[in-house]
Amino acid sequence: MKNILSIQEIFDLAKDTLIKAGSSEGQSEAVAETISRAEHDGSTSHGLFRLPGYFASLKSGKINQDPKPKLTNVTKAVLKCDGDRSYAPLAHKMYLNNLIENAKEIGVSILSINRVAHFAALWPETETLAESGLVGIACTSYMPAAAPFGASEKLYGTNPISFAWPRKNGKPIVFDMATSSLALGDIQIAARDGHELPLGTGIDREGNPTTDPNKILEGMLLPFGGYKGSHFSMMIELLAGPLVGETTSFLTKENNLDDGGPPLGGELIIAMAPEIISDLEDWEKNSEPFINKLSKLNGVRIPGKRRHKNRETRNSVEVNPDLLQKIYSLK
Amino acid sequence: MKNILSIQEIFDLAKDTLIKAGSSEGQSEAVAETISRAEHDGSTSHGLFRLPGYFASLKSGKINQDPKPKLTNVTKAVLKCDGDRSYAPLAHKMYLNNLIENAKEIGVSILSINRVAHFAALWPETETLAESGLVGIACTSYMPAAAPFGASEKLYGTNPISFAWPRKNGKPIVFDMATSSLALGDIQIAARDGHELPLGTGIDREGNPTTDPNKILEGMLLPFGGYKGSHFSMMIELLAGPLVGETTSFLTKENNLDDGGPPLGGELIIAMAPEIISDLEDWEKNSEPFINKLSKLNGVRIPGKRRHKNRETRNSVEVNPDLLQKIYSLK
Repeated sequence: MKNILSIQEIFDLAKDTLIKAGSSEGQSEAVAETISRAEHDGSTSHGLFRLPGYFASLKSGKINQDPKPKLTNVTKAVLKCDGDRSYAPLAHKMYLNNLIENAKEIGVSILSINRVAHFAALWPETETLAESGLVGIACTSYMPAAAPFGASEKLYGTNPISFAWPRKNGKPIVFDMATSSLALGDIQIAARDGHELPLGTGIDREGNPTTDPNKILEGMLLPFGGYKGSHFSMMIELLAGPLVGETTSFLTKENNLDDGGPPLGGELIIAMAPEIISDLEDWEKNSEPFINKLSKLNGVRIPGKRRHKNRETRNSVEVNPDLLQKIYSLK
Repeated sequence: MKNILSIQEIFDLAKDTLIKAGSSEGQSEAVAETISRAEHDGSTSHGLFRLPGYFASLKSGKINQDPKPKLTNVTKAVLKCDGDRSYAPLAHKMYLNNLIENAKEIGVSILSINRVAHFAALWPETETLAESGLVGIACTSYMPAAAPFGASEKLYGTNPISFAWPRKNGKPIVFDMATSSLALGDIQIAARDGHELPLGTGIDREGNPTTDPNKILEGMLLPFGGYKGSHFSMMIELLAGPLVGETTSFLTKENNLDDGGPPLGGELIIAMAPEIISDLEDWEKNSEPFINKLSKLNGVRIPGKRRHKNRETRNSVEVNPDLLQKIYSLK
């Protein structure tokens, strides 16, 4: 079986598979674009790896096959999006431009999304904002996967947050990371490939430290960085849940149809215009010296750089053959 | 020497000392309130401990003795405050109410402050927002104190961030923490009291791990939580610097008059209204079950709780006698 695919082939495979599951053309294209961009950038755990889950939730009816996400302009500063049980990339494709327009006009705006399934990376939305000259912050929660610092009971999702900083003459600075020690996808891939994980990544179901990804999947993750990371994880539960009119992870799980796909939940996206907030046209005079200095430090990796490099140099991707077999057999 | 002081006595001592340094009544009261609130809540490293530094920067002329912070309503969503070389609490006292009004009207607003010296905790401003029913986020940078993850050269300040979540019938949830392994004040207090610090807190000037607070003060701190904490620290450099029209920590230091007091810099404060962003009047139906569940987990400390308890139960504070002696001798 051919398992080196071009980016276009990955897009087509994803789109065709989603359409086979009953999804509308528009939703299928939005999700396929997210999947192929992730593979292009080397984010394996957000690429085709997610497709069987997307497929399952379309088949089970949890995800609307032909959703119509609806936007309400609550105020110029707040756009509320009812996702209508769609995959989040569709809502982004439809409404990120409205967010960009408003933020450029008044300096800061929020896109408050609920009733979507967000199963992908967050950088596609923050990077889009930064490419439009805006600072972007996005976060989402999920189902309980990590114990708060000090506890041995799952309460927090992996709760990722992404931040993107715009540059007039350069690629944006972008990070996108779980506030758990690792992302769930990374644990799943380690389990699939039989790799051990560092101590401190998670605990087994009795609360004992372990390096076995399977035992962590049965048990729970830990937040990164002790109580401080745990505080960030708590913050994201509140921002991507109650602030956007959604539940936090533990009630998301109670309400979720367990079909192997992602649950319905919320996402908060904040867009900020540096010209307006700094009240300076030449605001880059303060950021560029910092970015240049950071770039030159020994031992430092600029977040987002590896991804941008992959995007420029890779035209095809080697896909795990078992995964490919699984995708072909979906029906 | 009497070294158990009432909260009122701490306020009076701080105010009188600042006035002795030439500060206006208004600025002295705003800073004295911050200092006495910190002592009341048990935040020793943000209390009287800071007063000699405040004094020095008023005497040196770095801080304006009679500043007039100025507000510009750039848009309804963005309030820009030129601090006029004041201590930050004065700007808060004058303009936090404007931020609250605007955020309640349109859902999200930003107070973008520069040319202030922020030497205090951040929770006074975020807690004020939460007590008005708003979600508050505040961050500030400083002078380089920590090496980015992987490097052995100082670039980031201790870069604290505070988050506060409002509750209609309860104390807000509030955290306020450095994104370095510890706050600089904690290292200084450990050095003063001769305590060792855990490995991983910082490195000496050659980059070697050490537990000696004096060697860390000569060398540098590390960010909390490895590369993830380092990313948050980088984000705060950009948000509290260039986004508000200010320099990042390393240029702040280059421009700073080294008089023992805090440098002039920026602060970003974001206020968000949950009713408007969630588009739900009963938005607490999503947050309260989470907070209740978190409160009941074994081993978990709700951020802000110890501080609120101190505030309710303490009427006086034991102050380090050497510090008190130093304050009395300031002239």
